[in-house]
Amino acid sequence: MEKSKGLVTIPTDLDVVPQTLELMKLWGADAIRDCDGTDFPTELKDADAEIYSTYYTTRKDNAWAEANPEEIQQMYVMTPFYTAESETLEVEVMKGLYPDMLKPNTRDDIKRWWEVIDRTTGEVVPTDKWDYSEETGKVTLAAVPFHEYTVSFLAYIMWDPVHMYNAVTNDWKDVEHQITFDVRQPKTHEYTMKRLRKFIEDHPYVNVLRFTTFFHQFTLIFDELAREKYVDWYGYSASVSPYILEQFEKEVGYKFRAEYIIDQGYYNNQYRIPSKEYQDFQAFQRREVAKIVKEMVDITHECGKKAMMFLGDHWIGTEPFMEEFKTLGLDAVVGSVGNGSTLRLISDIDGVKYTEGRLLPYFFPDVFHEGGDPVKEARYNWVTARRAILRKPIDRIGYGGYLKLALDFPDFIDYVSQVCDEFRTLYDNVKGTTPFCAKKVAVLNCWGKMRAWGCHMVHHALYQKQNYSYAGIIESLSGAPFDVKFISFQDILDDSSILDDIDVLINVGDADTAHTGGDWWVNPHIVEAVRKFVYNGGGIIGVGEPTGHQFQGRFFQLADVFGVEEEHGFTLGYDKYNWDEHEHFILEETESVDFGEGKKNIYALAGSTILVQKDKEVQMAVNEYGKGRAVYISGLPYSFENNRVLHRAIMWSTHSEDELKKWFSTNYNVDVHAYPKNNKYCVVNNTDDPQSTTIYRGDGSSFDLEMEPNGIIWYEIQ
Amino acid sequence: MEKSKGLVTIPTDLDVVPQTLELMKLWGADAIRDCDGTDFPTELKDADAEIYSTYYTTRKDNAWAEANPEEIQQMYVMTPFYTAESETLEVEVMKGLYPDMLKPNTRDDIKRWWEVIDRTTGEVVPTDKWDYSEETGKVTLAAVPFHEYTVSFLAYIMWDPVHMYNAVTNDWKDVEHQITFDVRQPKTHEYTMKRLRKFIEDHPYVNVLRFTTFFHQFTLIFDELAREKYVDWYGYSASVSPYILEQFEKEVGYKFRAEYIIDQGYYNNQYRIPSKEYQDFQAFQRREVAKIVKEMVDITHECGKKAMMFLGDHWIGTEPFMEEFKTLGLDAVVGSVGNGSTLRLISDIDGVKYTEGRLLPYFFPDVFHEGGDPVKEARYNWVTARRAILRKPIDRIGYGGYLKLALDFPDFIDYVSQVCDEFRTLYDNVKGTTPFCAKKVAVLNCWGKMRAWGCHMVHHALYQKQNYSYAGIIESLSGAPFDVKFISFQDILDDSSILDDIDVLINVGDADTAHTGGDWWVNPHIVEAVRKFVYNGGGIIGVGEPTGHQFQGRFFQLADVFGVEEEHGFTLGYDKYNWDEHEHFILEETESVDFGEGKKNIYALAGSTILVQKDKEVQMAVNEYGKGRAVYISGLPYSFENNRVLHRAIMWSTHSEDELKKWFSTNYNVDVHAYPKNNKYCVVNNTDDPQSTTIYRGDGSSFDLEMEPNGIIWYEIQ
Repeated sequence: MEKSKGLVTIPTDLDVVPQTLELMKLWGADAIRDCDGTDFPTELKDADAEIYSTYYTTRKDNAWAEANPEEIQQMYVMTPFYTAESETLEVEVMKGLYPDMLKPNTRDDIKRWWEVIDRTTGEVVPTDKWDYSEETGKVTLAAVPFHEYTVSFLAYIMWDPVHMYNAVTNDWKDVEHQITFDVRQPKTHEYTMKRLRKFIEDHPYVNVLRFTTFFHQFTLIFDELAREKYVDWYGYSASVSPYILEQFEKEVGYKFRAEYIIDQGYYNNQYRIPSKEYQDFQAFQRREVAKIVKEMVDITHECGKKAMMFLGDHWIGTEPFMEEFKTLGLDAVVGSVGNGSTLRLISDIDGVKYTEGRLLPYFFPDVFHEGGDPVKEARYNWVTARRAILRKPIDRIGYGGYLKLALDFPDFIDYVSQVCDEFRTLYDNVKGTTPFCAKKVAVLNCWGKMRAWGCHMVHHALYQKQNYSYAGIIESLSGAPFDVKFISFQDILDDSSILDDIDVLINVGDADTAHTGGDWWVNPHIVEAVRKFVYNGGGIIGVGEPTGHQFQGRFFQLADVFGVEEEHGFTLGYDKYNWDEHEHFILEETESVDFGEGKKNIYALAGSTILVQKDKEVQMAVNEYGKGRAVYISGLPYSFENNRVLHRAIMWSTHSEDELKKWFSTNYNVDVHAYPKNNKYCVVNNTDDPQSTTIYRGDGSSFDLEMEPNGIIWYEIQ
Repeated sequence: MEKSKGLVTIPTDLDVVPQTLELMKLWGADAIRDCDGTDFPTELKDADAEIYSTYYTTRKDNAWAEANPEEIQQMYVMTPFYTAESETLEVEVMKGLYPDMLKPNTRDDIKRWWEVIDRTTGEVVPTDKWDYSEETGKVTLAAVPFHEYTVSFLAYIMWDPVHMYNAVTNDWKDVEHQITFDVRQPKTHEYTMKRLRKFIEDHPYVNVLRFTTFFHQFTLIFDELAREKYVDWYGYSASVSPYILEQFEKEVGYKFRAEYIIDQGYYNNQYRIPSKEYQDFQAFQRREVAKIVKEMVDITHECGKKAMMFLGDHWIGTEPFMEEFKTLGLDAVVGSVGNGSTLRLISDIDGVKYTEGRLLPYFFPDVFHEGGDPVKEARYNWVTARRAILRKPIDRIGYGGYLKLALDFPDFIDYVSQVCDEFRTLYDNVKGTTPFCAKKVAVLNCWGKMRAWGCHMVHHALYQKQNYSYAGIIESLSGAPFDVKFISFQDILDDSSILDDIDVLINVGDADTAHTGGDWWVNPHIVEAVRKFVYNGGGIIGVGEPTGHQFQGRFFQLADVFGVEEEHGFTLGYDKYNWDEHEHFILEETESVDFGEGKKNIYALAGSTILVQKDKEVQMAVNEYGKGRAVYISGLPYSFENNRVLHRAIMWSTHSEDELKKWFSTNYNVDVHAYPKNNKYCVVNNTDDPQSTTIYRGDGSSFDLEMEPNGIIWYEIQ
């Protein structure tokens, strides 16, 4: 069989020229890239490959930044809370922050842009009651004793957070701190366009400009010990400047307040129910960012190059699932693949010619060191991503980091070679088709499509004890045979007929967060629409504290639909007699469900059916509501067994128990994906062990199968 | 040694006359009583004992009730939530309720007194949009499809809930349902006073009228299967009638709404932060109840009898710790002793000549049957209560139920004999003195002294999974060497100098409940006062979710004081580096703390000291704040080991580590109580096993001691 070729990008560096060429052949790579901290060897410019070059739109030009300090990027930062012990309080604004990274902006009017807030009352301290001394770096304010205060201030970003992260992680010595300049501001804007043209001129061999990235870094701050202090992969707080904010004011017609960004120190992270002002600001940023991205993409095209965007770092304002994105004109998006959810962050993007996933591990010394096991990481990453790729493929895969490090691990080199071949076969079989979807599922939260696949995510694919039991649902869905949408409460409010095209709604997360909706459930239109949807036969699955918000005698606003409620002490006086567990279709393949963190204090209302309770705390229950069905689950971390639980919950909630065994494996470690349009289907073993299973085809016929570890087998549909 | 005598009350019945006399001698009893379901044998009227007679102020006179149906007592009931499936909704108001117990009141204007509420919006459904049919028992209302509705209605209490409970529990056959009449209403009021006089005349041998009780039963409802449906030992919802409510309106000057009592179906239970209207209503009821109680007490006295109140059943409006109580003129209060906390519900009462505790077990067949172990129950009850008695003694003990049943258990008869002797010795040594108190401790919640010792309690001494981790603190305090107060936020608001006389504040319970205070923590006066108290050297102990209420960037409003905060997703972006556990004075005697239900998602702020964290969830931490100290505990169920943890936390929080070994046992199963005024101290073994310990006297000198199981040893202070 001829060696397949293409769809693969590899990193290179000055010290690995011949090895790069060798590996291109072995892996069938057709693109080469540089990385932060590497350089592209000009010897390779004539290699038979597209050449990507990272392009740093907002950094790697300190001369410009230093000459135009007023156009250095800025971010809003809130100090910690300080309690006044007397009638005067001093707050050293930079305390606890890495001093080389940020510098308070006193160039602009601090009384206009900074905000001192009495957090005990929520009131703004009048500007004549406080002052800032540049000398001491302290705000001194007239305080009420024993009130808490915070100072929200603007600071220049004197060291790009990602550059700092790379420098700290790789222990780079004596590296010049790359200052981040603001492409949105007039001088830098003009300069940037010239700089881009010059870069392209200077690098004629480059085919693809890999923008890393555009203008605004997600929120990332380091503490005085250079440890990460705050991170939000979706955060907008580093996308501000008086220049930008004055434009924003003009557009929205109301006065900007630092608090719109600071948000009590929560920085509008995605657990927060977004305020109108924050949503206005996001919309404004998306439009403004889009304009300038378009300008850069046009220049790139004009110069005969392709424009690729890295989905990360300075990606704020480019949300790929929002309308503006399609106007950017980009050729491609590349992103890091941490798991199935992050794969689909990339592969679900419309409006580009191709998408590329950077697989893990990154060739960095944290994995590629003596005793390290990069094959294990690679296998885990590939098998995890593959589930999602089989639902919605990326168009290319690639790797990043220092190639030299990888060369010392021949097993790894071999394994990646297999992965590349497997990906090409897969892509060939799957590309351009829609796989068989058993049901249409919509995740309902405050963000909708804007945070599709990334909801619950704090930092890219990062585990959090407080979110894995919920993010598990999203990860399951990323590789499951369902047509998955993410919709917002506003979407329902705008047009509740959006629900007509959905089989199952999912509401997952903690009460009073953006993921479950909080006081959106006090809006009668939402409640009416969702109840009506279920009553008329829709399915609904609630995980954690779905619809949770204390109001009018209910904590779960749809307690009647789910048949469960949460005890907060207020209903302790009510005797509860419904505690028996029942066998159920949903759990037919499960010995004992892992609910992750689960939930305490959930009880069943009379009439609902408990599937699992632990020590009189319901973990799983089902309820019939009109013609519809509801499933409550306290938490569902990602696992193959839990995938099956969710799959069955979806099928049960839509009265489709008898449709379960259609493109189905009786062993939940093995998945089946069918592509009727291409007349193909495949069976994949998601585990490192051999698996036995029975496979059901779409017509209900079946056959037994033994699978190799991690294996994938392709079949024609007869 | 001569047999001691007195301070003990025993039950009797027609069939146990000689045995009663024998037992009086054996137990040294000096009072005899009847019970619900027993009769007093006139043969005993000349026994050398006070004779108590239960007197049912509001029942046991169906002739009167039936002749005056409009003066039958009433209660407010809310139906369950019903979801409208179309534009008309029918609600059968009595569905799910025991039909013989309640009867909707349609005699009064239902459009005035009932309330139909759209719980999806919180709005009242206008009275012209609904109607009630007596025939069908249904309210029919014009509904918005998929909104939820409740009907709040007034119902006559056709079977006294306690009488029903006794009848059901004891399987009484063919018993006439005792109807509850309303002594507050004019005809019944007048009749009642005559009835009381007549009762006294007819029972000249009775010395003590044991009122069981006064006018309003705590909330107790049964379902259609005669199972308990809702109970609140503190509930006021059965103390209403249009007659009363019209008076209330006149007093407060605003219009009454059913919702003030219904409270979204939560019935103002003690977990709810009390509304102004509910507090107004309680105050009104206390004053009105006091007037009529006084009248009955005066008649009792006029007839030469003593008036004793049973603390339970129809006790609503007589709160013994409130000002009005002292005006009642009662001679005595008797109550059931479930544990240390309920003992102090009785023994801390001021304004009566004596208090009496009815010990357990009650002589009922549930314990006194073949194979039952009443001695075990009695021992547990006595040893549990004894801790509290040694802090603040009741003046008498007693038993209740069917004496005949107890006679079959000679070991029990013997054991009680010991208890009676032990109590008399104890009383003799303790009476009238204040025991040594190491510190002054105040429990701070929304109820203050009104719910002293009973806070967290749903039904009398009843375990709840959701409260034992908090009630454990109260139970510990009931027998601990501290001067314990219960104060409310309003007390602090009225006069924050109340804190000057306190060493340690305790805030214990779940967030947004009356026990921790909810939005009281948004009141800057409260926050200022409490922070100042700690800053100036006070101690504070928070258990569960102290000061928990989401506001201005904090969930724990005193996160700065406690040094811990609760993660609700909003601060996931903040890196948390403080996870190391530390050894500490508080845990020096403890291997592993039982936190009960504990709490999830608590993390430590920088600078605070973690004592225990489990899987990155802090269970216990301490923090220095100004000159003061704070202790956070996630939960602390009652146990001897946990008593010691709390004791040490109190001593540490007041910088009094070096005062610990003063009237102190090194073995936490053994307590020391000192009565300097009487020159006595005692050592008690709270366990069923022998214990070795070292006892420290007040001067720091010590001696080793071996204790018998459950033993108590009295010493003179040298």
